Amino acid sequence: MIVPIHLTNSNDIQYDITIDNLPYLEFKNKIAIITNETIAPLHLDHLLDHLKAPQVTVVTIKDGEEYKNMQTIETILDELFENRLDRKSTLIALGGGVIGDMTGFCASLYQRGIEFVQIPTTLLSQVDASVGGKTGVNNRYGKNLVGAFYQPSAVYIDPNFLKTLPPREFAAGIAEVIKMAVMFDKDFFEYIKREDISDPEILKQCIKRSVELKAQVVNQDEKEAGIRAVLNYGHTFAHVIENETQYKTFLHGEAVAIGMVMANELAVELGLLSVSDGIEIEALLARYDLPTSYHIEDLDAFYEHFYLDKKSANNSIKFILTNGQIGTHIIKSDIDESVVKKVLERFV
Amino acid sequence: MIVPIHLTNSNDIQYDITIDNLPYLEFKNKIAIITNETIAPLHLDHLLDHLKAPQVTVVTIKDGEEYKNMQTIETILDELFENRLDRKSTLIALGGGVIGDMTGFCASLYQRGIEFVQIPTTLLSQVDASVGGKTGVNNRYGKNLVGAFYQPSAVYIDPNFLKTLPPREFAAGIAEVIKMAVMFDKDFFEYIKREDISDPEILKQCIKRSVELKAQVVNQDEKEAGIRAVLNYGHTFAHVIENETQYKTFLHGEAVAIGMVMANELAVELGLLSVSDGIEIEALLARYDLPTSYHIEDLDAFYEHFYLDKKSANNSIKFILTNGQIGTHIIKSDIDESVVKKVLERFV
Repeated sequence: MIVPIHLTNSNDIQYDITIDNLPYLEFKNKIAIITNETIAPLHLDHLLDHLKAPQVTVVTIKDGEEYKNMQTIETILDELFENRLDRKSTLIALGGGVIGDMTGFCASLYQRGIEFVQIPTTLLSQVDASVGGKTGVNNRYGKNLVGAFYQPSAVYIDPNFLKTLPPREFAAGIAEVIKMAVMFDKDFFEYIKREDISDPEILKQCIKRSVELKAQVVNQDEKEAGIRAVLNYGHTFAHVIENETQYKTFLHGEAVAIGMVMANELAVELGLLSVSDGIEIEALLARYDLPTSYHIEDLDAFYEHFYLDKKSANNSIKFILTNGQIGTHIIKSDIDESVVKKVLERFV
Repeated sequence: MIVPIHLTNSNDIQYDITIDNLPYLEFKNKIAIITNETIAPLHLDHLLDHLKAPQVTVVTIKDGEEYKNMQTIETILDELFENRLDRKSTLIALGGGVIGDMTGFCASLYQRGIEFVQIPTTLLSQVDASVGGKTGVNNRYGKNLVGAFYQPSAVYIDPNFLKTLPPREFAAGIAEVIKMAVMFDKDFFEYIKREDISDPEILKQCIKRSVELKAQVVNQDEKEAGIRAVLNYGHTFAHVIENETQYKTFLHGEAVAIGMVMANELAVELGLLSVSDGIEIEALLARYDLPTSYHIEDLDAFYEHFYLDKKSANNSIKFILTNGQIGTHIIKSDIDESVVKKVLERFV
C-alpha cells in the first residue's frame, strides 16, 4: 500500500511512502547507503540485492544515539566526497531513527542538498521518523539541537525488517502508534485495542494510519509553529526522564509511554480526561510491556528540567494533553507550577 | 530605497533589501551578531548604536576564507547555545561574504533554523551574497561544498560601510556588477560605462540594479537547476585560477574578471560575441584596475581542473557565455575540448 505525502505548505513537496516488501530500486546516478554495524549484517545484502546504480558506496557507522553527532556527520560527508558523489546522487538511510536523522541531515548539507531515500528498519522510525523531515544531531547541550528540516524523496517501509527487531524496541514503536491514536483518532485507538498487532496485516494497517495522521499534522505545520507540537504528547516528561537516566534506562518510546501516563494524570487533574480513559490508555501501554511508572528522586529538579528543553521558548512550558477525551488534544502553556508538582508528587 | 524580494518558488519567501543608511533595528528576542576581527573595530559600535534587543551576543571570528569551515561553525553554534539563544532568536551577519555565508548556515542549523539578517559590509557581498540564500562552508575537497539554501529575513545594505573598504576589494565587487550587466542587461552595461560609480548615488543605483537582476534569476531557479547557473559567468575559469593560485594571488572578483575575459574569448571563437563587444567588456574591467590576463602554466592541468568543480555533474563542463551580444546569455555544455584548449592557448 502507498501513502502519498503532499506537503502543500512546504515548497509543494510530494513523495510516496510505500508500505510493502522492499521493491527493486534503480538509480541513474551514484548512490550511498548509510547504515550501522547492527543493521548491516542483518539487512544490507537484502537491500543490495534490490538495487541498481552506477556506483554504490556503503558507509557503516557505529550503532547508538551517542554517535549521533557532528563528528559522525563529517565522517559520512568525507566518504561521500571521497567517492565523488555529485548533485544528482542519492543517499539511502538503512536503519532506525538515528540513521534516518543523520542521513537526511547529510543529504541536506552535501553540496547544499541532494536527494535521500528512507528505508526505516525499526517500528519507531517507520511510524515516526519517516514523516516530517526533522533531521539532525545531538550535541553537549541536548538532543537534536543542530539540524535541518529536509524531506526525503521516497520512503520504503518493509515490515519484514521488523522480524529481527528486539521485542523491547518493537514495543517502543507501539508507544508512538498509541500516541498518535490518543491525540488524533479515537477509532484508531479502539482498533488497536481490539486487534492483534502481531498479525502482519494489522501491523501494516497500524503503520499506515500512524503515517497518515502524522503527515496531516506535518502538512499543517512543518516547522512546529503550532499543531505539530501535539506530536510531543508525553515528550515533555519523557525528555526529562531520558535526561535524568542519561538515556540508559529507557528506550525513547518507553520514556514516552511513561510521559503519556504523566500527561494523562495532569489531564485528569485538569478535567481534560476521564479517569477511566486514563486507565484504558495505561492498560494498552502495559499490554505491550511498556513501562508506565517512574520514580522521581527530586521533584524540584525534575520540574526545573522542563526549562532545559529547546521547545520551551521564552520560559513557558508546553504540556500536550487530551482535550476532554481520547482522540482530541490541546496545548497548554499556562498550567500553574503547583498543579504540575501536585501531579508529579504521585511519582515521588 | 527598498528592493522587495519575493521568492514565489521557494515556500513563498518574502523579505526586503534596504539600500540606505542603516536604520534602527529592534528585536523582541535574544540576538547574536556574527562578525570578524577586521570588521568589528570598524563597524560594530555603529551597529550596536542602532539596535535594541533583550540580549545581544557578539561572536567575533578570525578574518579570512581559511576560517570558513565546519570548525568555525561549531564554535559559533557553541556560543549561541552557551548564551541560550532560542527558536525565536535572530542572528545578524555583519561582514562580507564569508561572514554572511557562515551566519546564514548557522541560522539554518541552530535548532533546525532560526531567522537571520544580513548587513553586508563589502561591495561584493552587497551585490552578490545578499540575495540567493546560498550558505555554507569550504572543506578540503573544495569551496562551499557543505551548506544549505537558506534565505535571510531582511538585508540592510548601507553603502557607508564601503568607505573603509580597500580599493582592491571595491573593484572586486564591481566585477560582479559588470557580470550581471553583461549577462542580463545591456542598458545597465551602458549605464555603468557612462556614469561614475564613485558617485554615491550612482553606486546605490548600481547596487540596486544588481540586486534586482539577481533576485529575478534566483526566483526563477533557487536551487540552480537551470538559469541560476548563468550567475557563474566567468566562474568556471575563475575557480580554476583561484585553485591554481591557492586563493592567494587574486580576490574572488578579480579571478572572475579574468574568467569573464576567458569566457568572452571562447564566445568570440564560437561566434557568440563580437570582437568589439569583447574589447568593451575588457576595457570596462580594466577601468577599475581589475586583472584581465593570466598566465596558464600547464594547459592540460588547467583543463582537467574544470572537472573538480562541483557544478560539473556527470562530467560535462558548463560554460556560461554571452549569446550573441552583451545582455544575453547561454549555457553551453557541449563545447569540444579542442575548441576550449585552442582559446586557452592564448593565455599560455
